[in-house]
Amino acid sequence: MLLYCSLVLAQDDVDVPETERTSKTQSCFPDMWDFLKEFGAMTEKQRVMETRLKDGETRLKDAETRLKDSETRLKDSENQILELKSKEKTVVVFSAAAGGSGHIGPFNTDTTVVYKVVKTNIGNAYSQFTGTFAAPVPGIYYFTFFYHAGGSQRVSLTLIKNNESVVTTYDHTTSHDGADNGGNAVFLQLQQGDQVYVRLGANTHVWGDNFITTFSGFLVSQV
Amino acid sequence: MLLYCSLVLAQDDVDVPETERTSKTQSCFPDMWDFLKEFGAMTEKQRVMETRLKDGETRLKDAETRLKDSETRLKDSENQILELKSKEKTVVVFSAAAGGSGHIGPFNTDTTVVYKVVKTNIGNAYSQFTGTFAAPVPGIYYFTFFYHAGGSQRVSLTLIKNNESVVTTYDHTTSHDGADNGGNAVFLQLQQGDQVYVRLGANTHVWGDNFITTFSGFLVSQV
Amino acid sequence: MLLYCSLVLAQDDVDVPETERTSKTQSCFPDMWDFLKEFGAMTEKQRVMETRLKDGETRLKDAETRLKDSETRLKDSENQILELKSKEKTVVVFSAAAGGSGHIGPFNTDTTVVYKVVKTNIGNAYSQFTGTFAAPVPGIYYFTFFYHAGGSQRVSLTLIKNNESVVTTYDHTTSHDGADNGGNAVFLQLQQGDQVYVRLGANTHVWGDNFITTFSGFLVSQV
Repeated sequence: MLLYCSLVLAQDDVDVPETERTSKTQSCFPDMWDFLKEFGAMTEKQRVMETRLKDGETRLKDAETRLKDSETRLKDSENQILELKSKEKTVVVFSAAAGGSGHIGPFNTDTTVVYKVVKTNIGNAYSQFTGTFAAPVPGIYYFTFFYHAGGSQRVSLTLIKNNESVVTTYDHTTSHDGADNGGNAVFLQLQQGDQVYVRLGANTHVWGDNFITTFSGFLVSQV
Repeated sequence: MLLYCSLVLAQDDVDVPETERTSKTQSCFPDMWDFLKEFGAMTEKQRVMETRLKDGETRLKDAETRLKDSETRLKDSENQILELKSKEKTVVVFSAAAGGSGHIGPFNTDTTVVYKVVKTNIGNAYSQFTGTFAAPVPGIYYFTFFYHAGGSQRVSLTLIKNNESVVTTYDHTTSHDGADNGGNAVFLQLQQGDQVYVRLGANTHVWGDNFITTFSGFLVSQV
Repeated sequence: MLLYCSLVLAQDDVDVPETERTSKTQSCFPDMWDFLKEFGAMTEKQRVMETRLKDGETRLKDAETRLKDSETRLKDSENQILELKSKEKTVVVFSAAAGGSGHIGPFNTDTTVVYKVVKTNIGNAYSQFTGTFAAPVPGIYYFTFFYHAGGSQRVSLTLIKNNESVVTTYDHTTSHDGADNGGNAVFLQLQQGDQVYVRLGANTHVWGDNFITTFSGFLVSQV
């Protein structure tokens, strides 16, 4: 009987009809049959689970690699956005008028025009006390200046970058007491700290009243 | 024999040589030995799988946390990009010329110059019917205007922001029927809806022909 | 005895006190009891692990979906950043002065002014040899030009886009040998390759010395 039972353990369980098989096994190990079925199912389930686990681990490893890659790219994108926003936020713009009440000059030496009435000064790069603009960041800047002057004296205005003449405007003495208007404009590539200002030539003059003689500039692009 | 078998179950399977062991067990439970080996292997496999599963769960939890963090950062980056693109897309630029055929003015009161010939009007912020520019978004704007005029009358042009004079250009009557040219420029910080226009002073004139008397502006930066 | 053992297999192991149960089972299968406990624990563990595995697989699938979505969004963000940076990097700016030493003109036909002294030429879109600016990218551009001229001749400068007059500045002959200043500015929407230059009218002149007669432009916005 024991041998029979062991044979049952040994042989495959497919050849014997279910009813007969059950009665026979139950006569010695009534539950061994179920146990073996259970064990077989468990073994099969473990095989399946191992495959699923292996598959899950592979997918997880792949997901981790992709995630790490995404995190690196995301960090890079965040840095680039920060840089774009930082450049966008670097607004440098100024406009100032000479102000005063009447002629500025003539002086017997070249003199920086101090545009005293600030209209706009975003970034605070222009000084209304010295008349000088100092580039807060390296970049391309635009400058333009306009003047009005009576005709009794010459006019000579030169935009200076550090000590270099960039663009100029001037006018001769006009007979019959007419008036002169003029101006100029330029785009300049500046290094941080470069100074730009308008110089009134010796023995020339401009008119300071009514926001008519002006100096303006702005940062076009950081480079 | 059963006891012997049970002993086989009980004792560790390392002491008996493989050949002898197999013959002995097969005499009672021919497959029990294999079964026990299988069960032992299954137990060990389960232990290993559990460790792998636990490890996988830990890694998955970590990946989920990182993924959630990445998603939050990505959303934030997307919003910042949208903001940058929105600002980039807000292009406000106009240029218009006075047009007409001859003198504009003199009028006996201050009069807004209506620059009728639009050269550019991206953003449609300038009205060729009223001569007024209305800021569509808050920001820093640049304005510049130029004029030509015969010398028989004075010229007075003032850039007005709402009701405030910002910059001006003017010229006296010139004897001998000469001609006058002039202009000015300014950067202005505007609120949405602020109105900017050029006012021709009472009893002064400009020349409207040939795109010579112009008014231009653009949005430098949203703030 | 075998039947007894099989009964042990069959019956639930909860009703018999631990000590008695152990002694009884050990009398036939000394380790079967432990084995069965182990098997039961293993079955239960497998059930739990299967639940955890299923749960892990669900979470992994979800994470993979979210990761794929994040990767798509990240790629999209990266492309948008590239576009923003590309536009930011497209800096087109030039300023040039007529140069020379004295009058340019009068000529008996309309002549392009060749501003020979380059002050700035980022993007190399302006040619100091032809005086022509060619738009390297489609966009909104700003141009401004200023001149100085003696009064002995008329002045007529017109900014030309391809063959179309855009804005102009001119001045009459001035008696008493005075001097003339003037300029203009305009924003223009250009297609790639559009050419912009300043034309000196036939029988008119400007002064080329001292960086006083200038031509400048820049790309405001790509569109």
